[in-house]
Amino acid sequence: MFFIGIDIGGTGIKAGIINEDGHILMKDSIKTGADRPYQEVVRDIAELCNSLISKMQLTTDQIESIGVGVPGICDQKTGVIPFCTNLGWHEVPFIADMHKYFPKLPVYVDNDATVAGLAESVAGVSAGTQSSVFITLGTGVGGGIVINGRPYSGSHGVGSEIGHMVIRMEGEPCTCGKRGCFERYASATAIIREARKAVADHPESMIMQLCENDPENITAKTVFDAAKENDPTAVKLFNNYVKSLAHGIVNIINIVDPEIIVLGGGVSNAGDFLLNAVREAVKPFIFYKTQPYATILLAQLGADAGIIGAAMLGKH
Amino acid sequence: MFFIGIDIGGTGIKAGIINEDGHILMKDSIKTGADRPYQEVVRDIAELCNSLISKMQLTTDQIESIGVGVPGICDQKTGVIPFCTNLGWHEVPFIADMHKYFPKLPVYVDNDATVAGLAESVAGVSAGTQSSVFITLGTGVGGGIVINGRPYSGSHGVGSEIGHMVIRMEGEPCTCGKRGCFERYASATAIIREARKAVADHPESMIMQLCENDPENITAKTVFDAAKENDPTAVKLFNNYVKSLAHGIVNIINIVDPEIIVLGGGVSNAGDFLLNAVREAVKPFIFYKTQPYATILLAQLGADAGIIGAAMLGKH
Repeated sequence: MFFIGIDIGGTGIKAGIINEDGHILMKDSIKTGADRPYQEVVRDIAELCNSLISKMQLTTDQIESIGVGVPGICDQKTGVIPFCTNLGWHEVPFIADMHKYFPKLPVYVDNDATVAGLAESVAGVSAGTQSSVFITLGTGVGGGIVINGRPYSGSHGVGSEIGHMVIRMEGEPCTCGKRGCFERYASATAIIREARKAVADHPESMIMQLCENDPENITAKTVFDAAKENDPTAVKLFNNYVKSLAHGIVNIINIVDPEIIVLGGGVSNAGDFLLNAVREAVKPFIFYKTQPYATILLAQLGADAGIIGAAMLGKH
Repeated sequence: MFFIGIDIGGTGIKAGIINEDGHILMKDSIKTGADRPYQEVVRDIAELCNSLISKMQLTTDQIESIGVGVPGICDQKTGVIPFCTNLGWHEVPFIADMHKYFPKLPVYVDNDATVAGLAESVAGVSAGTQSSVFITLGTGVGGGIVINGRPYSGSHGVGSEIGHMVIRMEGEPCTCGKRGCFERYASATAIIREARKAVADHPESMIMQLCENDPENITAKTVFDAAKENDPTAVKLFNNYVKSLAHGIVNIINIVDPEIIVLGGGVSNAGDFLLNAVREAVKPFIFYKTQPYATILLAQLGADAGIIGAAMLGKH
């Protein structure tokens, strides 16, 4: 059985042919060109799929389904994507438009973080588990919930948006209109925001050397690298970051209680330095202190998670 | 088919014989006597069950199962209750002990808020839905999640503890060791705490008249009654309460996205006055503003939810 998985991002669209174990057999990518008309993007996605099918010397009949991860949500009943961040799509009948090119193939669409979580649970770090929550720590914070081995997006498809869980009422304003969302504290953007504030007061911090004295160059890695060297300003920033991240994780444990919590996205590239600190920070906040709770792990599939998980939407 | 449902509380134990539609055919109760040895409490629970079976002129063979709601959690695999708030139970082999009295009957145990949520989803306000989240607004805040028509307590049985989701990092200290838990802002206890502080600064508030000038007499109802009369201090307390409650509800929508959110517990007796305000407060905080989301409703079953839901644990 072969599945096509497509990962639509603001700058690039990746696609792959995936087997039922979640392994990529062939992959390719194109530029999104998000400023183009939506119909042109759909046409190029269809061409990308056909090119992969052809390169693998397959026919469309040998493909089980096409799965797509989008930076937004899709109404599964109507096949309409109400809106898609970064793509400028509003109320587009995406599934119907894909069916124009592939009339016989089932097309599934889900949120990009949700499909990345599914990918990890099929072929990555949470493989073999029935329930997991994937947290992407990137420019924003996304969530992918898997329950009973299937992606969970709730009753109206609006769940799993853990980045917009409020952990600090009256806190930092968020793009969503609320204040104090998890994303405002657990994203790379949050680390950079706080670091820029901190170096204004502490120009002696090693962060300034690492960013060549230009706070515009600060990244999450700059801050973590300085923290590893025990730079006091960076250590404080790191500890605050870990504390906020731990609060969001504990909230997920207290509500969803998954087998595994997977940390992915750019910030998770800090590896064990981050992971060990987060595990320690979570421990004292656990409610049922004598009971087992979710193991926290790092994502394994990296940038491939999007196409693998999207493909696996079609595997029931 | 007949099911026995038992609701164990700190002061009383209620039991009922329930049919498969979730209707109570007969019920009775005893005092808990939580200061007694655990074994005596179990013996009295067994006697209560046998007395109901006998009064209904049934035999044990006609009972499908016994379900029990406890103010704590139970390890479903071992049948052990690790600890039970208000009862002083620690690591008690509750299911094994119940089997000494009822060797042939399946015994199920779950958290009291979880079973109350299940009750509403079988025979109450969320009947006919597949997913709902029940929030008990009482001395504390409990949560009951139903997904695919079954109670959901997570992979380790420690989920659904929505009262201990942090909504305000660095906020009010909680009995769980964290700060800023939802329970610290959405419980009756929270309303009373804030009202006592407020009347110290505003002794002219109608709250003082309603509590006969003794802040020790303040209840959630005192505050809500004064707010209904537009007492400025009470209106402010009410609005702050509703805002916090709305934040917890929106977090649940953003993570679990159930069909229905049910407000129960003593505070929910405020009825439409509370419900309408909460619905209005939730609206601007919704992430996907054009998409449908959970309907917020008031619980219907009141104090009977515990025995009905406990009984329904045995209905698969």
